[in-house]
Amino acid sequence: MSVVRGESFVEVLTREQCLELLAGEEVGRLAVVTGARPEILPVNYVLDGDGVVIRTGEGSMLHVVAGGVPVAFEIDAVDRRRRTGWSVVVHGIAHEVRTLGIAELTARLDALELHPWAGGQKPFVVRIAPISITGRRIGRARSR
Amino acid sequence: MSVVRGESFVEVLTREQCLELLAGEEVGRLAVVTGARPEILPVNYVLDGDGVVIRTGEGSMLHVVAGGVPVAFEIDAVDRRRRTGWSVVVHGIAHEVRTLGIAELTARLDALELHPWAGGQKPFVVRIAPISITGRRIGRARSR
Repeated sequence: MSVVRGESFVEVLTREQCLELLAGEEVGRLAVVTGARPEILPVNYVLDGDGVVIRTGEGSMLHVVAGGVPVAFEIDAVDRRRRTGWSVVVHGIAHEVRTLGIAELTARLDALELHPWAGGQKPFVVRIAPISITGRRIGRARSR
Repeated sequence: MSVVRGESFVEVLTREQCLELLAGEEVGRLAVVTGARPEILPVNYVLDGDGVVIRTGEGSMLHVVAGGVPVAFEIDAVDRRRRTGWSVVVHGIAHEVRTLGIAELTARLDALELHPWAGGQKPFVVRIAPISITGRRIGRARSR
């Protein structure tokens, strides 16, 4: 068991830092409410402006594409040895992209490198319009 | 850009495989419902039998300790190069441990190696009593 004695601290990330981190990852976790219960699912995503774009065909997530559904989306990275890490959480409203009626956006999405891990059809493209994008980094002070 | 041509497949994990994976990790994501909206937060955890035990002092998660709250808890690991990975999701009911009135469990929890990343007081110990534990592994066929 490694013991890290340095005092930990929390750094609140700026929106710009959060977007930078979101641009650099490709797997996150989508949380939705299904009948008063939370559901959570790892998803591939790409960043489109400040919106998180995913594909889904998952049964439990299908109602998300109905539109107007509040969702939370999270990415993180952890250094288990140093016991540090960061996380970014996007709160927003999910809409199926085709319901937005923006042909230009749809065309750009086609060009995005979305690679669902699992095979099979995942026909719905959903964009999360962000209400808030927050993040924090947990570091460790070195000189105490 | 690396392109992986092998066909992906989904393997449903057994409960035992899920518990094994849960025992091997120490950071997961907790999803709860707050006012009809999903909230998601990375947390340190330990496995206690088939229950996931976390500490929290987080404002947004405080209502979890009120007890009887449905939660979802997720862990995953991703191999971005091979585009494979696995995930485990626990659905259950969260209870503050002290409300369970089980002195023996409380004592065991004190001995558990819970290391919240962030400093500061996180006084509430919460156990998720599982309703379901499900997992899947996304692999890639080699010989097609």
